[in-house]
Amino acid sequence: MGELPAPSRAAEGVRETGRLEAFSDGVFAIAITLLILEIRVPHLGEDAAAGELLGALGRLWPAYLAYATSFATILIMWINHHRNFRCVRRVSHPLFILNGLLLLCITFVPFPTALLTEYLQRPAQAVAAAVYSGTFVVTAVIFNLLWHHVARSPRLLDPRVNPQFLRRTTRGYAVAPLVYLVAFGLGFLSAALSLAVCLALAVFFALPSPVSEIIDD
Amino acid sequence: MGELPAPSRAAEGVRETGRLEAFSDGVFAIAITLLILEIRVPHLGEDAAAGELLGALGRLWPAYLAYATSFATILIMWINHHRNFRCVRRVSHPLFILNGLLLLCITFVPFPTALLTEYLQRPAQAVAAAVYSGTFVVTAVIFNLLWHHVARSPRLLDPRVNPQFLRRTTRGYAVAPLVYLVAFGLGFLSAALSLAVCLALAVFFALPSPVSEIIDD
Amino acid sequence: MGELPAPSRAAEGVRETGRLEAFSDGVFAIAITLLILEIRVPHLGEDAAAGELLGALGRLWPAYLAYATSFATILIMWINHHRNFRCVRRVSHPLFILNGLLLLCITFVPFPTALLTEYLQRPAQAVAAAVYSGTFVVTAVIFNLLWHHVARSPRLLDPRVNPQFLRRTTRGYAVAPLVYLVAFGLGFLSAALSLAVCLALAVFFALPSPVSEIIDD
Amino acid sequence: MGELPAPSRAAEGVRETGRLEAFSDGVFAIAITLLILEIRVPHLGEDAAAGELLGALGRLWPAYLAYATSFATILIMWINHHRNFRCVRRVSHPLFILNGLLLLCITFVPFPTALLTEYLQRPAQAVAAAVYSGTFVVTAVIFNLLWHHVARSPRLLDPRVNPQFLRRTTRGYAVAPLVYLVAFGLGFLSAALSLAVCLALAVFFALPSPVSEIIDD
Repeated sequence: MGELPAPSRAAEGVRETGRLEAFSDGVFAIAITLLILEIRVPHLGEDAAAGELLGALGRLWPAYLAYATSFATILIMWINHHRNFRCVRRVSHPLFILNGLLLLCITFVPFPTALLTEYLQRPAQAVAAAVYSGTFVVTAVIFNLLWHHVARSPRLLDPRVNPQFLRRTTRGYAVAPLVYLVAFGLGFLSAALSLAVCLALAVFFALPSPVSEIIDD
Repeated sequence: MGELPAPSRAAEGVRETGRLEAFSDGVFAIAITLLILEIRVPHLGEDAAAGELLGALGRLWPAYLAYATSFATILIMWINHHRNFRCVRRVSHPLFILNGLLLLCITFVPFPTALLTEYLQRPAQAVAAAVYSGTFVVTAVIFNLLWHHVARSPRLLDPRVNPQFLRRTTRGYAVAPLVYLVAFGLGFLSAALSLAVCLALAVFFALPSPVSEIIDD
Repeated sequence: MGELPAPSRAAEGVRETGRLEAFSDGVFAIAITLLILEIRVPHLGEDAAAGELLGALGRLWPAYLAYATSFATILIMWINHHRNFRCVRRVSHPLFILNGLLLLCITFVPFPTALLTEYLQRPAQAVAAAVYSGTFVVTAVIFNLLWHHVARSPRLLDPRVNPQFLRRTTRGYAVAPLVYLVAFGLGFLSAALSLAVCLALAVFFALPSPVSEIIDD
Repeated sequence: MGELPAPSRAAEGVRETGRLEAFSDGVFAIAITLLILEIRVPHLGEDAAAGELLGALGRLWPAYLAYATSFATILIMWINHHRNFRCVRRVSHPLFILNGLLLLCITFVPFPTALLTEYLQRPAQAVAAAVYSGTFVVTAVIFNLLWHHVARSPRLLDPRVNPQFLRRTTRGYAVAPLVYLVAFGLGFLSAALSLAVCLALAVFFALPSPVSEIIDD
């Protein structure tokens, strides 16, 4: 007998979408900004020379790489979350739940990022890489569930959405969990390689799309 | 002689509601995202094997469970906060104060979450469980006060609100403090059991409602 | 030759106000939520009994008191920031600068809060209390400067603002820096007394106002 | 074959701009508020006298100075980000990417701030100053790229933008990376001097502009 918002009219639906998006934007913005807290200033002796500090900063490269990858991944997911909701004209109960699960994954990202930073060059790196890419496998699956829920529901989907855009997006999203699975597998060879695949996927999704029209006129 | 906003016209009231909601959304979004800072990366010896890290990550299950429960609880409270304010057409002085007390509880949640994470499997677990569920007892009581203030004030309540929705919401909210009291009591037997009741209540509130229309047409 | 936004028309001015408020709301919401990070879970021996944890939690009362006081103070300042901007119809260069200085003070609050928490019961408490109440003296002075800049500028001030509201607000705000000065002085006797005065002022500002109409009809 | 939002009509473009700005505002607000976490309460002996605490707080001046400089710099960048987007009527793919890179720099600022705080008075100060000012060199360059992309694209630029405003902004922004390069060079003499140049530039950009009209009427 739990109670959740439901749109009673198109106007109400639009208003609900706006606030769901605003709350989600807040969570994305905070998660992406908290990542920096995992890059820790190296603590050296009081009289450490410039060269020592430079060396210590250089040895932080796993932290920079994990930071950049997680930043790019959350940013691309925010951009796509955005685009998906431009296609939505009403909210539904499962949309609230699926969006909540997606935000659970997004807020979780700082933990595997910190884990990978700490273990990227150590014997236990495979476990850290598996947790990192595994988090993105789950996130990408939920992203697909959210998108399918919207794309297949005539009640939620804005009828003006460009059908070519719909098809390409559905196809593009289906690829993401598979690539993260590859990153998951590669992590057992090398955590750095696994991380590189995750970064490459984010860069790939940042490339311009051949279908630029979301809404048909 | 303190001074607080008061609506002088419907239009002003609507504007005030919007900003009260936006500030509250910000606080909810930040509190829910800060929870991850309480899951700490395990620090092992430089040469720790993969199996060791896996074991250490496994022993963090109290952290994951407390994280998921607090996340689900704050998310459900945000969704309900949202729904409640869809019924509000004007703000009042007590509404600002009650909402401020509610936000005080929400921002407090990361502390009992961290406490429960640390003591869930240790002899002092009953105290940690009592603080955790006790926080939610207080939060749920304030939620009821806020809702009753709105539901019983013809000046604040949108007259188009579906009466069946009002009745069911009032009844549903009355149950929450009682369930958290049960969780409080069970904590003296087992902190994990107490936590499970809190998680179950969040899941229950996430189920679809039979009354889906908030606003009558 | 620095460059800052300037309203060229009423419509542009309104839009600028909205975004200045939204950014400020974000800063207030984050600062108020970060306060909880200063209440640290007590670390006891692995087999600490329930009574020990209860005692350790009890000894954290300076943290709870400082948390509640800073939370209430930031909340009241946000409510008043809000109310002030309901009287503003255009932005100006000094308004941006004064608002920036106010946000600098608000984001600073977690530091004196943590300082007071740590030293409230120790010999150096007078210094911690002076920094804490001193931060609020400066904040309250900037609040007055911001309010005077708006209230005395016919270009910025909405002409519909209730003159009685203006007078009472001006008078009420003038009191705040004086009370914080008293708290500053009392800190040299007892940090807890100084903190109590700060908390009392926040509660006083939360009382309902006899002048409830901001905008005349 | 990545996919990114594209405006299909002016109305859609406006909506996209709004959400891009809201997300960016969130990131700026969080980054500016997280800076305070780098000022750490000094931990002294239980019976430390007031004078000792006062001395310890005084020795934190590098933290205060770095905090104030980073706060002022992010605030000025937010104000300018704001102003730039008042000139934008549509979004484009490169705008999303350039804005993402800018946010990457903004969220990174707490790290060089903490680094400079720790090493400002130590032998390795030149490295810390180089990382700090170097971060702002990169940020300022990206700011210029973002501005040029808008200012040179008739499709993105609002045609009503005051041409004198455009010229002065372009000129003013071109100066920033050069000044940060000077700060970078000075850091090899003294980190405090380098920091002072960064602070001075933020103050300079906060001065009122002779061209106050962004949009022509």
